[in-house]
This record gives sequence, C-alpha cells and structure tokens, in this order.
Amino acid sequence: MSADIPILAANRVSDRAKKTLDIVKQFVEERCIPADPVFAAQVDAGGDRWDHHPSVIDDLKEEAKKLGLWNMFLAKGHYKEGAGFTNLEYGLMAEYLGKSRCASEAVNCAAPDTGNMEVLAKYGNEAQKKEWLQPLLDGKIRSAFLMTEPDVASSDATNIQLSMKREGNEYVLNGQKWWSSGAGDPRCKIYIVMGKSDPGNKDVYKQQSVILVPANTPGIKINRMLSVYGYDDAPHGHGHLSFNNVRVPASNMVLGPGRGFEIIQGRLGPGRIHHAMRTIGAAEKALEWMLLRINDPKKTPFGKQLKEHGVIIEWVAKSRLEIDAARLVVLNAAIAIDDRGAKGALKEIAEAKVLVPSMALTVIDRAVQSFGGAGVCQDTPLANMWAQIRTLRLADGPDEVHLQQMGKNENKKGKAVSAKILRQAEITKDLFAKYGVSLSHIGPKSKL
Amino acid sequence: MSADIPILAANRVSDRAKKTLDIVKQFVEERCIPADPVFAAQVDAGGDRWDHHPSVIDDLKEEAKKLGLWNMFLAKGHYKEGAGFTNLEYGLMAEYLGKSRCASEAVNCAAPDTGNMEVLAKYGNEAQKKEWLQPLLDGKIRSAFLMTEPDVASSDATNIQLSMKREGNEYVLNGQKWWSSGAGDPRCKIYIVMGKSDPGNKDVYKQQSVILVPANTPGIKINRMLSVYGYDDAPHGHGHLSFNNVRVPASNMVLGPGRGFEIIQGRLGPGRIHHAMRTIGAAEKALEWMLLRINDPKKTPFGKQLKEHGVIIEWVAKSRLEIDAARLVVLNAAIAIDDRGAKGALKEIAEAKVLVPSMALTVIDRAVQSFGGAGVCQDTPLANMWAQIRTLRLADGPDEVHLQQMGKNENKKGKAVSAKILRQAEITKDLFAKYGVSLSHIGPKSKL
Amino acid sequence: MSADIPILAANRVSDRAKKTLDIVKQFVEERCIPADPVFAAQVDAGGDRWDHHPSVIDDLKEEAKKLGLWNMFLAKGHYKEGAGFTNLEYGLMAEYLGKSRCASEAVNCAAPDTGNMEVLAKYGNEAQKKEWLQPLLDGKIRSAFLMTEPDVASSDATNIQLSMKREGNEYVLNGQKWWSSGAGDPRCKIYIVMGKSDPGNKDVYKQQSVILVPANTPGIKINRMLSVYGYDDAPHGHGHLSFNNVRVPASNMVLGPGRGFEIIQGRLGPGRIHHAMRTIGAAEKALEWMLLRINDPKKTPFGKQLKEHGVIIEWVAKSRLEIDAARLVVLNAAIAIDDRGAKGALKEIAEAKVLVPSMALTVIDRAVQSFGGAGVCQDTPLANMWAQIRTLRLADGPDEVHLQQMGKNENKKGKAVSAKILRQAEITKDLFAKYGVSLSHIGPKSKL
Amino acid sequence: MSADIPILAANRVSDRAKKTLDIVKQFVEERCIPADPVFAAQVDAGGDRWDHHPSVIDDLKEEAKKLGLWNMFLAKGHYKEGAGFTNLEYGLMAEYLGKSRCASEAVNCAAPDTGNMEVLAKYGNEAQKKEWLQPLLDGKIRSAFLMTEPDVASSDATNIQLSMKREGNEYVLNGQKWWSSGAGDPRCKIYIVMGKSDPGNKDVYKQQSVILVPANTPGIKINRMLSVYGYDDAPHGHGHLSFNNVRVPASNMVLGPGRGFEIIQGRLGPGRIHHAMRTIGAAEKALEWMLLRINDPKKTPFGKQLKEHGVIIEWVAKSRLEIDAARLVVLNAAIAIDDRGAKGALKEIAEAKVLVPSMALTVIDRAVQSFGGAGVCQDTPLANMWAQIRTLRLADGPDEVHLQQMGKNENKKGKAVSAKILRQAEITKDLFAKYGVSLSHIGPKSKL
Repeated sequence: MSADIPILAANRVSDRAKKTLDIVKQFVEERCIPADPVFAAQVDAGGDRWDHHPSVIDDLKEEAKKLGLWNMFLAKGHYKEGAGFTNLEYGLMAEYLGKSRCASEAVNCAAPDTGNMEVLAKYGNEAQKKEWLQPLLDGKIRSAFLMTEPDVASSDATNIQLSMKREGNEYVLNGQKWWSSGAGDPRCKIYIVMGKSDPGNKDVYKQQSVILVPANTPGIKINRMLSVYGYDDAPHGHGHLSFNNVRVPASNMVLGPGRGFEIIQGRLGPGRIHHAMRTIGAAEKALEWMLLRINDPKKTPFGKQLKEHGVIIEWVAKSRLEIDAARLVVLNAAIAIDDRGAKGALKEIAEAKVLVPSMALTVIDRAVQSFGGAGVCQDTPLANMWAQIRTLRLADGPDEVHLQQMGKNENKKGKAVSAKILRQAEITKDLFAKYGVSLSHIGPKSKL
Repeated sequence: MSADIPILAANRVSDRAKKTLDIVKQFVEERCIPADPVFAAQVDAGGDRWDHHPSVIDDLKEEAKKLGLWNMFLAKGHYKEGAGFTNLEYGLMAEYLGKSRCASEAVNCAAPDTGNMEVLAKYGNEAQKKEWLQPLLDGKIRSAFLMTEPDVASSDATNIQLSMKREGNEYVLNGQKWWSSGAGDPRCKIYIVMGKSDPGNKDVYKQQSVILVPANTPGIKINRMLSVYGYDDAPHGHGHLSFNNVRVPASNMVLGPGRGFEIIQGRLGPGRIHHAMRTIGAAEKALEWMLLRINDPKKTPFGKQLKEHGVIIEWVAKSRLEIDAARLVVLNAAIAIDDRGAKGALKEIAEAKVLVPSMALTVIDRAVQSFGGAGVCQDTPLANMWAQIRTLRLADGPDEVHLQQMGKNENKKGKAVSAKILRQAEITKDLFAKYGVSLSHIGPKSKL
Repeated sequence: MSADIPILAANRVSDRAKKTLDIVKQFVEERCIPADPVFAAQVDAGGDRWDHHPSVIDDLKEEAKKLGLWNMFLAKGHYKEGAGFTNLEYGLMAEYLGKSRCASEAVNCAAPDTGNMEVLAKYGNEAQKKEWLQPLLDGKIRSAFLMTEPDVASSDATNIQLSMKREGNEYVLNGQKWWSSGAGDPRCKIYIVMGKSDPGNKDVYKQQSVILVPANTPGIKINRMLSVYGYDDAPHGHGHLSFNNVRVPASNMVLGPGRGFEIIQGRLGPGRIHHAMRTIGAAEKALEWMLLRINDPKKTPFGKQLKEHGVIIEWVAKSRLEIDAARLVVLNAAIAIDDRGAKGALKEIAEAKVLVPSMALTVIDRAVQSFGGAGVCQDTPLANMWAQIRTLRLADGPDEVHLQQMGKNENKKGKAVSAKILRQAEITKDLFAKYGVSLSHIGPKSKL
Repeated sequence: MSADIPILAANRVSDRAKKTLDIVKQFVEERCIPADPVFAAQVDAGGDRWDHHPSVIDDLKEEAKKLGLWNMFLAKGHYKEGAGFTNLEYGLMAEYLGKSRCASEAVNCAAPDTGNMEVLAKYGNEAQKKEWLQPLLDGKIRSAFLMTEPDVASSDATNIQLSMKREGNEYVLNGQKWWSSGAGDPRCKIYIVMGKSDPGNKDVYKQQSVILVPANTPGIKINRMLSVYGYDDAPHGHGHLSFNNVRVPASNMVLGPGRGFEIIQGRLGPGRIHHAMRTIGAAEKALEWMLLRINDPKKTPFGKQLKEHGVIIEWVAKSRLEIDAARLVVLNAAIAIDDRGAKGALKEIAEAKVLVPSMALTVIDRAVQSFGGAGVCQDTPLANMWAQIRTLRLADGPDEVHLQQMGKNENKKGKAVSAKILRQAEITKDLFAKYGVSLSHIGPKSKL
C-alpha cells in the first residue's frame, strides 16, 4: 500500500502511482489471492492439464481493465504503449503482484510476455508490432522466449547453437530449446527465438540473431514439459522443444541479422527488477503465513504457542529485516534504471538479481519449517513459492556468474585504491618525521 | 564522495551537504588516515599509555575547524548548536569518518561526546549548558556516559543499581560502572551518570535519574581499564569505575529526578545511525585493503595473483553487495529520523543497529583471511577494526534483545494478517461454488 | 563398499558384514539405481498413478532374496527375526540403500515397514505377529504408521486427539490422521494407529494407546494425498485419512491400553539412524552427480569447464568434508545403540537426527546449482531427493524441538560446571598469594 | 576424562592411556587452569613483558614430571623417545591441554617445540640430537620454526626466499622471517630455519633446505613482535626477524641440502591433529563458560535467566553438536595416522585442519555474545582464545588453499563416477525395453 513505501523512496512516487498502488493492493488481496486455488482447481478439472485455460483468469482480466490496471510494466519515458509509471512505481506494484499466482497475468504484466513486449516495442518494425505486439498488449495471446539450450552452458549466450540458415526469403531453424516458459499454454502463439545465424563471425557477439516464430510453424515439436521440483506449472509450463527444418520468412528477423546480443541485453534490466519485486512480495506473503501459523491457538507444542518461542520470534525479526533490506536494494536499482537507463544501472541490477532470491528462499523456508508438514504440501502456498523462486538463482545466469562479474567490476578499482593506500603510507612517513615518532611495535626492546 | 551517494538518497541531499561531503572525504583520506599510525605511535611514545594526549589530534582539530568541519552531527531542525545538516547528510559524512581512528575526534563528532552533547543540548539547563556543553562543543574537554554495570544484565536498564541518595542539597552516589568509554582520557572532565534515585517507585521506568558528575569528584576510583580483545584503546579506554560516597550538588541533576529513562531513550536514535554509518565506512576500508592485497603482484600462491582466484572474487562481490544493502538500510533510518523523529523511526533504527555490525564483521574477516598473517597483526587496520566493531553487537543491548523486540513488534500484525488470510479463504469458497470446481487434490480418486 | 568404511569404525565391522556390504553396493549401483527411472515410468504408465504397483520392484525383491539381502535392518541382539547385523553394520548398508528409490524396498528395509516390524516384533503378541509381522517380514504386504494429526502440534505427542473408545470387545476410532506415509499403496494392508484411549488420565503420557487397524476396515476414508514440493510419491504417497466410527477388535491393541508412548519411543532410535544413513547416501549421490556435471566437456561457461572454477571446487571440498563428518556422527550413534540400547544413546541419536538432513540439503542444493535448469527438473535425481530430505527436518519433530531438548540436556551440566569454574578461581587466589602477584589490569596506574 | 571418550573410539584406547587421560584431566583442571591468570600476572609484573619467564610454569613442569605427564605427543611406533601413546590417545589428552594456557608447556607438549622435536628425532643426526633434541625433550630450552616470510605468499612454500649460500664450511643466511612463534621467549635457544639453498634447481621442490641456527648467532635481529588482535602473547610471542649474513656451520644442515620440502611435509600431519584437538578443548571450555553465564542468577534480562531464552538454549545445543562432530573428525584422522602414517591420512588430516577452527570460532563467539561486555575483555578467557584460534585458519596455509586441494582430490573421482552414471543410464535403457515403458514426461501429450 502506498503507506508502506519505504521512506527513502516515498518522495519519488507520484500521487497517481500511489493511488494505483492502493488499487493494485486491493485487487491482489481481495480478488487475485482468493482466485489462486480456483485457478489450480480449474487446471486439475479436465483430464489433461495442458489443453484448457482456467476461465477465472479471463474474468480477472476483465476486472483489471475496468480498474485501469493494465500494462503498468512498460516504463514511462521508455515506452509510449504503457501506463506511464516509472520503474520505481511499477516495482512497488509488482511487489503486490508477486503475492498471487493469478495477479500478474490478470493485469497483463506476466513474464515472459512483459520482456517480449519490451523487445517488440523497442526493436520490432511496424508490421511485427501490428501482428504480435498489439494482441500481446491486449492480452489476447501469450508468448515465449526461446533462448536456453539443453546441451550447452547457455548462461554464456555465446554458446547458443540453434542454427538459423538463410535460404532465399526464409530462415531455416534447426536445434533444441528448453526452459521455454509458457510454451505449454494453448494461448501461446508466438516464440521469440535466439539462434546462431552467422557462426563464422569473428566477433562472437555478432553471431546471434533473434527471429519471430509462430508457435504453429511446422517442424516444431514440444518433446516434453519440464518440472520444477515436482510442479509442472500447467498450463503455462516449461517446454523442451525441438526445431526440425522450421521455416520462417526472413522478414520475421528482429532488428536485423547479427543483432541478437543487443536485443537480449536490452531485455534484461527491467525484467530482473520485476522478478525481484515480485519475489519480495512472495517473501512478504510467506512472512504473513508464518504469522498466521505462530498465532494459531491450536498449535501449542509443549504448552506454548509458537509465537512464544524465542527462536521463532527471532526468525520473524530476521525475516522482516532481510525483506526490508532487499526491497531497498531493488528500489535503488529501479531508480537507477529510471534515471540512467539499464546500461547505467548494471551494478544495482546485479545486486538485486543476486540478493533477492536467496533472501526469499531463506524467509520462505523458515515459514515452511514453522508449519511443519503443512508447509511442504499443498495446504499452504509456501512449497510452491519456494520451488518457483529457487529457479531464479539459475535463470538468466546462475548467481555465481553474476558474482564473478560483480567481483571483477569491483576489482577494477584495485589499482587506484592500492595507489591511494600507498600514498597515505607515504604521508604517514612524513608525519612520523614531523612529530618525531616512529612505527610503534609491540615487542622485546631489549633485543632490538 | 557526493558522487557515490546511492541514487535512492541523492535527491534528498542539499548542495551544501554535497560540498561538505567532498571536503570531509578529502580531509579523511589525505589528513586523518595518514595520521592514524602517528596517533598510535604517540600513545606508545611515553612510558604510560594513559597519561598523555597525542598532539596530532589537536593539529587535526585546528585544521578541521578551518575547513568548516565541526559538530556536523547535531541535526538540523533538532539542535540550533550544530552545523545544520540532516541526519541523512551527516550520516553520509560519518561513513567517511568511520575510515579513520582520528577523524571523528578531529571534527568533534566522536562518541560518546556526540550523544552527551545531544543530552545536554536537549535536556540541560542553562547553567549546565554553559559549564559543560560549551567546552564540549568547542572540543576543549571530553566526556563519558556511565550506564553499564558489571553485576547486572544492564541491557535491561531497569536492572541498573548505582545508588543516588538525596542528602540535603547533594546527591550521594555509590556503586560501580564499567565500559565507561573515554574515561581513561586525561581530558575527560565530565561523567553523565545513570543511577537509581527512587528504587521504591512502582513504575520501574521512573526509578532512574541522570546526573552530571565532574571526573575529579572525590570518591571516584578507576579500578582498571578493560581490554577489547587485546586492545586497550588508550588513551580513550573503557573504564571500570567505583563510586564510594561521591557527592554532587543536586543542581547537577538533568531534567529532574526520575527522568533517567526519558533521557537515555532520547539519546539512542541518532547515535545508532552514527555508529552504523561509521561501521559502513570501516567495511568499505576493509574492502579497499582487500583489493590492495589481492592485486599485490608479490603475492602469487600457486602461480596466480589472489584476484585470479574465483573464491576471492566472490568475496569481493559479496562484500560490495552486502555493504551497499546495509548502507541503504541505514540511510533509510536516517531519513526516518529526519522526517518522523527517533520515536517514529524505531523499526528502521533497530534494523540498522542489528544488520550493520554483523555485515561489517563478515566483510572485515574476509579481508583478514585474504591477508593471512598480516591481517591479524598490526600491519593492517583490519584486526583492530574487527575488535572495535565486534563490541557493537553487544553495546546498547545485544543483537538478540533487539531481535526479540523486532519480532514481537512484527508479530503485532499477526491478528490482522490471520484474519485477512482466513477471509481470503472464505472468498475462495464462494469462487469454488461460482466456478463449479472443488479443492483439487493429488491422489487416489478411486478411494475417495 | 567395505573399503570405504571410515577407519574409526572399521574394526567394529565383522567380515560377514563387510562381504554383505560389498554385495549391497553392487546390487544398488548395478540393479537398483538403473531401475529407478523404470519404477517412475511404470507409475506413470497407467491412467491412475495410485492403482497399480510397478513390477520392477517385485523382480528386484526376488533378486535381493537370492543374494541374501533381506531384513538386514533388524538388529543383531535385539531381534531374532533379522539378518544378524549390528546397527553399525546395517547403517553402513543403509547408506547405499539411500542412493536409490527402489533399493530399500527391494531388500525389505523400507520405512515405515521397518519401524512397524520392530514394533510388532518387540511388542506384538503371537497372534499379532502371525497375522501381520510374518507377511511384512516376507515382503508380501506393506504397512503405515498413523500418528501425526492435522489439527494439533503433534510433534508433541501428548496433543494427539484421535479418539479410541472401548465398546464391548471393540475399540471405536474417530478422528483424522495425515502424513500417513505409504497409505496410498494398494499393497498397504495394515495401519498401526496411535490414539487417545484414556483422555482423562492424570499422567499425560498414559492417555495414549497403539492399535492395529486393517486398511480395509469400514469407516476409514482417504480424503486425499499430500504432495511434497509438488511430488506425490505415488504409489506410496502420504495420506490424509479420516476415521469415522472405525471398529476394531480389542485384541488388536498392542501391549495394552495406555502404553502408546512406550511403544512410539521404542520405535524411534534405530529408525532415525536408518533415515540418517540413507540421507548420507543421498548426499553422496548428489556429490557424484555434481562431479558428473563439472567434468562435462560440453559445459564450458566462459571458456572453462566447471571443475576449473575455484568456487565450484570449494563446493566439492566442503561437501566431501561435511558428508564425512556427518557420517561419523551417525555411525557413533549406531554404535551407541548397539552398546547401550536406544535409551542410552539419546544424545548421539539426536545429534544425527538434527545434523544430517541439513547437511544433505546443503550438499544437494550445491549440486542443483551446478546443474542449472537440469538440477531442478526431472533430468537429475537431485530435486526429488531434496524434497524428500526436506521433510526430515520436520518429521518425528522439527529440528527446533530437538535442539531445545538437546540444549536443556547439556545445560544440566550448568551447575557442576559453574561450581568448577568458581573453584578454579578460588585456587587462583591462593596462587596469587603464593607467587606474590595480583590481578593484572591494563590501565592507568597513575589513577589507581 | 576416559569416560567421555566417544564410543566410536573407545575400544582403541589402551587402559594405560585411559589412566593417563584421567590424570591429565585432573592436572589441567585443578593445577593448570587456576595457574593461567598467575602466568599472565607474572608476565605483567615486570616492566618489560619479554625479559622474564613466569616461574609458575617451572613449578607446573616439576609437578607434571612427577605425575608421569611428559612428552606424550611423540607417537608410539613412530618415535622411541616418547611416552608410548598413539596419536589417538595423545589426541584425547591434547583436548584437555587445550583448555589451559599453561598446560601444554607444563607437560612439554607445546608447539612449536613438539613439531621441532619430531623433526630432530626423525631427521637429525646424532650430534644434532645430542645438542638440541635432548634439552628440548628435557624441557630445558625452547625452539622456533622459521618458515613464513613477509614478502611472499608463503602458504605456497616454493615461494620462500631466505637465501642460504654455501661458503666453505658454512652457510650464509640472508632474508627475513616472520610469525616466528616463540622467538620472543628468552629460553628460546634454537631456530629451525627453512630457506632456499639451490634457487636454480629445476625441481622447485628441491630448492629448499632446513638448517639449525642457534638463536644467539650474530646477524640475527628481532625487528619487532607481531600482535594477534591486540595480544602480544608475551613472552612467547611472534617475531619478525631479519637475517643479515648469518653464518652457521654446514653441519647444521638437517638431512642434507635440497631436502627441505621432505622435512616440512613430515612435520605437518600430527601437529595439525594436536592443534585441532587442543582447539576442541578450547571450544569445550567456551561452552562451559557459556553455561556459567546463562546459569548466573544475577543476570536476568527482562525477568528471565539467560538459560530460559530459547535462542540461547539453541546455541548451547548447536555448540554441543558441532563440537562432538568435529571431535570425531579429528579422532578419525588421528587413527588414520596411527594406522597408515601421515602420508596415508592426508584427506582425514585436511578435513580436521579445515573444520575445527571454524567450528571453534563459532562456538567461542556464541559464548562471547552471551557474556556481553565481559566476553570481549580480560574477565573471561574467551576473547583471547578466539584470537589465538583465528590464526589457525591462516597458519600452515589458509583454509581456502586446503579446500582447493581437497576439492581437486575429490574431483579425481570425476572420470570414474561419470562413467558409472552413464553406464547406469545404459542399463536403464535396456530395462525400459524389457518392461515396455519409456521415459516418463510431464506434459502436453496432445502436442507430441
């Protein structure tokens, strides 16, 4: 709620955003969270979890549009198609969206569509925008982003191997993709595919292209859906797809051949903030459920309610502290993007990317532990949230890759910092002379 | 430096403060840090480490005054005597002060004088201010705050036992105090003493008073000085004092009898922010020294410089991330004090109090480990910084006391949050009916 | 393998056990682990995951019997029905069993049957043994242990509420049970049920009884099966059952009314060691998979195989160290049970119970992280192992309950230890006098 | 005490060792621990902390000899000069020695003399033994081992630079050494010095030699003594020495030129076990002091004794568990040395070396925190123990070097383990065919 904005950020949030934030909160808490079990029940209701779409989502989307909650993720000043909020402002909203399975989709702010819409809005030509961006903006279709591959370390995107060969007016695609999130959904109509169009280029960052591939193009096969721990995430899902002589018009190329890296880099900044803020929301939700549990008068191991056990209260305190610290880190990154663009905010974005999922996993796991058996099963949202967020330590590059990059960037200061410390030591020498003292040592003066 | 202000806070810092911040940085890096070893050498130079005062400090104080760096800690809007900066603005300066042993004292912003000056400015009468506040503001004398006692758990101040008995126009003090920081300094002229003047009062928070006791009052004995790990912190030091029929005029009482709690609570907020920001500075310094070490071309275990070892680079990255996150937490608390006063910022202050020392200890310990033997001895500032900061997890209440308080405060939401979740479950039931589905369960349908 | 027995334990393992251990290892690695995906495929193969039993298990059981691998868990000296191995010896075997989903069941050493057979062997009368123990020992039926209840904090077993009322020659049971593991299996024929037969008894440890309930008794309903991080564990499963006027002959009572506590306590010791050693095996398996990954020549992020990254190598080292330490703790507990019985080994058992699952979760999570996406999905055994072991921090009482108990037990030494330290201080005083020295203090001698 | 031997190790300890262990315990608890403050007071008593030797130690040595407690460290089967105990047996004794500053020296089992005596006993010729080993065995002189150098990363001993040049019948030494522990003691008469005698040798492990240098040889200067977190460890101390054309007879060479590596490697194994077991003892002592504190009836923050706070009790439990686990790891390593020699026990020794100091630092730090101010100052042994043990994470190579080595050793299994897992996958394929099933996938069958 607008009253909960950290004081450090409050003066940067417009009144309009504050009002919208209040509406988002109410919509999430009163409409979306209660709908989450209905969504799950509707997925279960048919025989096949993948061939039908829960109608509750469509009703929520209608409601959201009427409330004016739609496409808030497209940041003011960067996209004309959006709702006109800054990354900071949308970030605060995304925290609430992160508390519900249904909420992001209900307000048309769900990944991977958000990043895909950004790509199309930023890099697509008019024909591409008309055919794919508009229905996405309208929430009529969904999309997938196909980058990761099973046989290489694709956290390093230069390793990507899916082949794109030009033949006449077409590109012919061959290869495999996995972790193609959303590919299971019957409404998913368009794949944005990263592949290698120029494997011989000496510049390893110019070998890749991004091309638009309609989901129903012949030659595409969904081999299987991947589970996340034991969850299938139907009907959205995570596909393992193979491309076998898949032909698409050359005009489907985005921005131009060899510009794939440029596109995926532009895609990452705000999306990481969205993920991070939704994850903050999930952590808040876990803490709320933990409070529910520890105040349950029926749960009195050894004669005391859980809230009377000091260890549990310390978990509550640490969770509060860790969530609050992480939120400030994400909001700082959001403002950095607002002010300097994603390229000027790399450090701040990386800090949020690495810090938030680990923090949330810790908080959620405490909540699981406080629930006991109810925490690991379907009776709380906790186990599912944990599994979803666990993937964020891997997606878009594992933590360790980001930490190495952050460490190397920090170490660029090494030379200047070393020079400074040595210069300070020189000044100290002069001061020793001036004050007539010398290096003081503990020790056996008699032996000197 | 003003360019390093986190973007989240930057628009709240005045141009004047930014200019001053740049001067502080230069003064600390070029004058104070080089003077630190001189200070240590001058303490060592005499036979007795406790009977003389390093002259380098006096020279730095003169210099600081000329640069306009004096009493910046007294916050704008709260004290008329100060330099007119907000807690946020001074907090940013305090980070630099934390990088040098000499710096805080050089600009007259050293604990415990800062808190003591706040007490006198806020609660002292005119006579008290004239006699003690003015020379403290001028940097002519120093002071100590005597609260902690050896024989009780004084993290809970109701346990304090030093007796203050009214006899005619005097109070007679009997008891013991320890961790009386600064009491070793020959320039320390005034003790602000917390004691029990009304032990029979039914309100346990009205039994205590605070009284001003000149250091040379008969009956006071410094039994010994306490070490911190192996450091004596001479000439400042941490005294264990006994009071044996120490008589002071009743007019030395601050604010009035029974108002001790009120005074110590008013003293804590900003001081915790000062400590926290200086600690951030110490952590930054440790990271700088770590960079010095890992870029040292002479240190090449197993053929590689330390900076080429992935584990070390990850330490650098984590340190950068953890420092940055902690800094945002402190600055958020500083702004909360600026906007709402210390009483309205209890949560934010507590978060900073608990988070920062643990973070800094971790960062410094990594730096120690990267230095090997040089890290634990006098050849780097690291071991000494570690020992100093380790006490912050104990001082003003151990972490665990604060965590219990924070957890209980957070748990006050428990009832409302529980009601909300149960209400959401009710709505879900209605939705189940509306959509004609029921709770979905994994399991053996044939047995249902 | 017998060659891998920690040297500290090696001289307590008989040659016969060493030979069997080698056979167990070969059976697990060459027969059971390859069969695990077949088991999963057979569960999937039908439309309903709960109504059929994978035939691969039956073939493995035949094979195991021929190899002489059967009922090794029943400890020598405690049970005449078993294979004659000590808890230490079986513990070493259980480590290998823990590497495969199928192995424990294949050698008739799977929970909860193991604990249930122990109960029947130790406390059952001849009729009970003949009807239920023998078919369990033969591997012809399976069983479940029904203790945990959804509406109470059943980590404290005095809270258990399922009502057992005597009516004539029968007991009538009413209430609910959950986490009834194995209840989903069509071969599960007998429930061992803990309930409250004498709620008014002043001794809260004599209110409970344990009774045998055939699974097909009218009035029992499996409401649903519980998931564990999305896994259903079919066909075994974890049931939520309701008892509605379920009638069983009074002769089904085990040991006698009011002796439920006695029975469940006798059941816990060895079972915890079995779980712990299987978990050690799971951790070893995770480390093996991690080695597979980091030596995969196709996975070369940023031009280096994962094994060349220092951070990863440190994970390998820490995993090796942590597994080895945990194994010693479990083996120490196993020997303690062998030598002193479970009651005399409470401390050692509790240490193993608390230490091992946390250790294994850490090791497995490192392996997950090193795999990236493959680690969280069905392509490795890691995610599933993690989920299974996560429940061990909750089952049989959460870690925190055990830690409180362990801490209180340790603190029983407090009085004696305090007396010792104070006595030492008295001797020191005498020595001060003898040597003519006094307490040394850092500090200002001039002020003393 | 012999009754406290972990059950896993008990049957390997001789009755004679058990009796001696009981005597050691009594001697440490009743004689040595009470003498520790006297030792400190005697060091302080003179003006110079480095020029006199506390007489209390000499009295304890006389007493120890009478009790038959002398040179127990020289392991049975490896050295004829010792007391005839195994490494396991002495390890158990060393745990008690680790509880007192005075104890190890009192029984002539103090580092670095122990390692130095091992070197002389194992590699010294008869003349060297007569001149230096005998007085060391008699406890008449002390010794130092000079290996580490300030200007190189000497955790990698190939980096050592102190020059040893043969000139006629002498070697001439030039260079610097630091962390020369014990060099401050006036009774330290002999330095065992590692240097580079053949810098041009192509085999980098044959460039080094070890030579015996009497402490009073001209050209040696103690530049200063190094502090450890503010402690000077007088009169023992840690010296920074320079060698300026120091001439020693060539006959002082140990074993022969170029054999330095061989010597230092032989020196390390048992010494690491000694350190580790003493550290276990220190951790036990910290836990005892913690129990003293939390049972102190005068310390009742917020109305409850510390022992009634759940967080504190959990610290006690975790400390007990972590100490017990670490002890088993060290004892396992001790037995490995007994059975296979140090070279055959590298893995076990490394595990103990890395695990134990970190564990003890954690335990001690919890005790410090439970004491508050008393924990960091001279009123408890805690702060000093922490500082001493902190150096063990650096000495003889930092943890990270050992972890890298351990990880690489474990990864040597990588090839075989990978082959095994792939072979298992092949068997699975055969089983799929046999059972007529295929890889089970979650997912949209309709799209396959």
